[in-house]
Amino acid sequence: MSAAVTILGIDPGLRRMGWGIIRADGTRLSAVAHGVVTPPTEAALSVRLDHIFQAVTDLVAEYRPDESAIEEAFMAANAASALKLGHARAAALLAPARAGLPVSEYAARLVKKSVVGTGGAGKDQVAAMVGVLLPGTKAKADAADALAVAICHAHHRKAASIGSAA
Amino acid sequence: MSAAVTILGIDPGLRRMGWGIIRADGTRLSAVAHGVVTPPTEAALSVRLDHIFQAVTDLVAEYRPDESAIEEAFMAANAASALKLGHARAAALLAPARAGLPVSEYAARLVKKSVVGTGGAGKDQVAAMVGVLLPGTKAKADAADALAVAICHAHHRKAASIGSAA
Repeated sequence: MSAAVTILGIDPGLRRMGWGIIRADGTRLSAVAHGVVTPPTEAALSVRLDHIFQAVTDLVAEYRPDESAIEEAFMAANAASALKLGHARAAALLAPARAGLPVSEYAARLVKKSVVGTGGAGKDQVAAMVGVLLPGTKAKADAADALAVAICHAHHRKAASIGSAA
Repeated sequence: MSAAVTILGIDPGLRRMGWGIIRADGTRLSAVAHGVVTPPTEAALSVRLDHIFQAVTDLVAEYRPDESAIEEAFMAANAASALKLGHARAAALLAPARAGLPVSEYAARLVKKSVVGTGGAGKDQVAAMVGVLLPGTKAKADAADALAVAICHAHHRKAASIGSAA
C-alpha cells in the first residue's frame, strides 16, 4: 500500500525546463536529483523541442521514475506565449508518456497551495518551502518549481489512494 | 541537382491532424499518400499527443520522406486554442525531427498563396487546387491542407536552392 515511489516533476518551458525527482515513502519525502534543461535558444524550434524530449527521455532512463507530474499550463497573457508553452509542455510530457508512465497535471495554484499553503505564493516562497520539505535541497527557481510539482503529486496521489480505498 | 525528393506535409491539430506525402522531381509533383490522424478525444492529453507522435513516426518509417514541412501556427483567437495547437504541433514535428529530417515551417497564408495564388483562399479552394496540382488526388480538408504544405515546401525549397546557387 505504501510502497515507495519515485516521482518526476516537470516545470515546462522552451527556454528553461525545470525537473526534479523525489522519492515518496508514505508521508516521507526525499529529494533524489533536480536540474534545469536549457535548449539552445538559437536553434530551430524542432531542434529545441527535440532537445527537451531527449533530456526528459534520458532522465526517465536514468532515474526510472514510477510516475510523473507536470504543471498545467497557466493561461498565458497572449496567444503567442501560450503557443510556445504548449510546444514545450508537449515535448516534455511526451517522454514519460512514451515510456508508459502516468503523467498527472496540476494547476500552478494547486502546486503552490500544496507546498506553501497558499495558491498565490511567489517563486522565492516556493523554493524556500521546497528546501524545508526536502531537507538538504538547494534548488532554485525552475528546478524548485519542478520539485514542487512532484511534491504536489505525492500529496494528491496519496489522497486519491485513500479515497479509492474508502 | 534535381534529384527527386519525398516530402511529408503536416497540418497539425489535436482533434484532426492531416498528413500528405508528395514526390517532387524538379517541377513535377506527384501525390504518394495522404490521410488524417484522429487521436482518441476522450483520452488524456499525454495519450493523445503520444498518438500523434506515433502516427507521424510510423509515416516517416513507412514512406521515408527526405524532408518535412508543417504549417506555422496561425495566431489563434485566444490563448487556450493556441496552447492546444502548440501541443499538437510539437508532437507532430518532433517525429521527423527525431528521425533527423529537416522540418520547414510555412505560414498558412504562404501555403495558400503557393497553391491557390492568394493568401486568403478558403479550405475548399485549397482542396480543389491540390487536386489540380496533384492529378488523381481526392484529398479533402485537413489532408488537402497537409498536401498543400508539402507543395509549398516543394516550391520554396527549389527557390531557395536557386537562390543559393546564384
